[in-house]
Amino acid sequence: MVEKGLLIVLSGPSGVGKGTVRKQIFSQPETAFEYSISMTTRKPREGEVDGVDYFFKSREEFETLIEQGKLLEYAEFVGNYYGTPVDYVRETLDAGKDVFLEIEVQGASQVREKFPEGLFIFLAPPSLSELKNRIVTRGTESEDLIGRRMQAAKDEIELMDLYDYVVENDQVDSACRRINAIIVAEHCRRERVAIRYKKMLEVD
Amino acid sequence: MVEKGLLIVLSGPSGVGKGTVRKQIFSQPETAFEYSISMTTRKPREGEVDGVDYFFKSREEFETLIEQGKLLEYAEFVGNYYGTPVDYVRETLDAGKDVFLEIEVQGASQVREKFPEGLFIFLAPPSLSELKNRIVTRGTESEDLIGRRMQAAKDEIELMDLYDYVVENDQVDSACRRINAIIVAEHCRRERVAIRYKKMLEVD
Repeated sequence: MVEKGLLIVLSGPSGVGKGTVRKQIFSQPETAFEYSISMTTRKPREGEVDGVDYFFKSREEFETLIEQGKLLEYAEFVGNYYGTPVDYVRETLDAGKDVFLEIEVQGASQVREKFPEGLFIFLAPPSLSELKNRIVTRGTESEDLIGRRMQAAKDEIELMDLYDYVVENDQVDSACRRINAIIVAEHCRRERVAIRYKKMLEVD
Repeated sequence: MVEKGLLIVLSGPSGVGKGTVRKQIFSQPETAFEYSISMTTRKPREGEVDGVDYFFKSREEFETLIEQGKLLEYAEFVGNYYGTPVDYVRETLDAGKDVFLEIEVQGASQVREKFPEGLFIFLAPPSLSELKNRIVTRGTESEDLIGRRMQAAKDEIELMDLYDYVVENDQVDSACRRINAIIVAEHCRRERVAIRYKKMLEVD
């Protein structure tokens, strides 16, 4: 019996740089996990290739897949659907390979319900840690702006609660290094390794 | 208030290569944690320096420290005491620095009781995974020898239960890389980061 792969979910607030980080991770020759290509109803941008960047679908096709339960998660975002085809994810995990998803926070909570054992990584904006300093050092901020910034930071901290790990996207290289470390570590988790050894030795 | 450092405990069966792995980790310029030097009553070997390799103590001195509760853990091994001075560990953690212990499995369980939140890494012999193959491929092993080997492997798996991570010491470089990854990952654990952010922003 093949040991199941690990489902790796990278998410975080819109605009935090998830796509950039994901692309850099997959540009590394040592990356040994599979990228799950998302499906979308938005039009391809210049240079985007169907089946590489996204699976481009019509709204009708997408809604049929939703009805058929063929999406692990989906969300509507600025008038377009984005989602993850579930079959590819299940088949790849069953074949013992790790699957990497880069999705919006809305989708991540849907995935957590279906794959509670997945590895959920929250990419946090560096502004979160800079916020306090900026608030303190700039004397010029209005009470109102400070209040709104604090609220945004609190909201982001609350979003984290679903995740196993938080990586601050201060620099892309350093964020990628930390994400890789988290995946390596996860494969060394005692529960995981002990099960592997026990199966191997057929002891109970 | 300074965030407390992380207590990293590397342990594993006698002879697995803990010392070699630890030395390689501390030879890396990027290593940012402090090594807790052990105390022993055994005689210094050729080239060993007091306060670098070990703190060398007499049996009387060591037993006084035990009585005074000055040892985080200790064990007797081939007629000599080995232990970890507790003050250095506490002071370094309180100063916000990570502390790295390389100790025997006996000592590791004592540390787990006092620092349940520590990061416990079990260095496993590669023989554990090779065992099955060797047993199967060599037709020449006696029933008795196979039985004893299987028992030894089961004992090692049971020893793992106390630990958070298991790293197989197949190659020193690769074991060190995985240990470093585990430490990086631990610093990104959501609980840890969320506490840091919350403190920083003074939100509740």
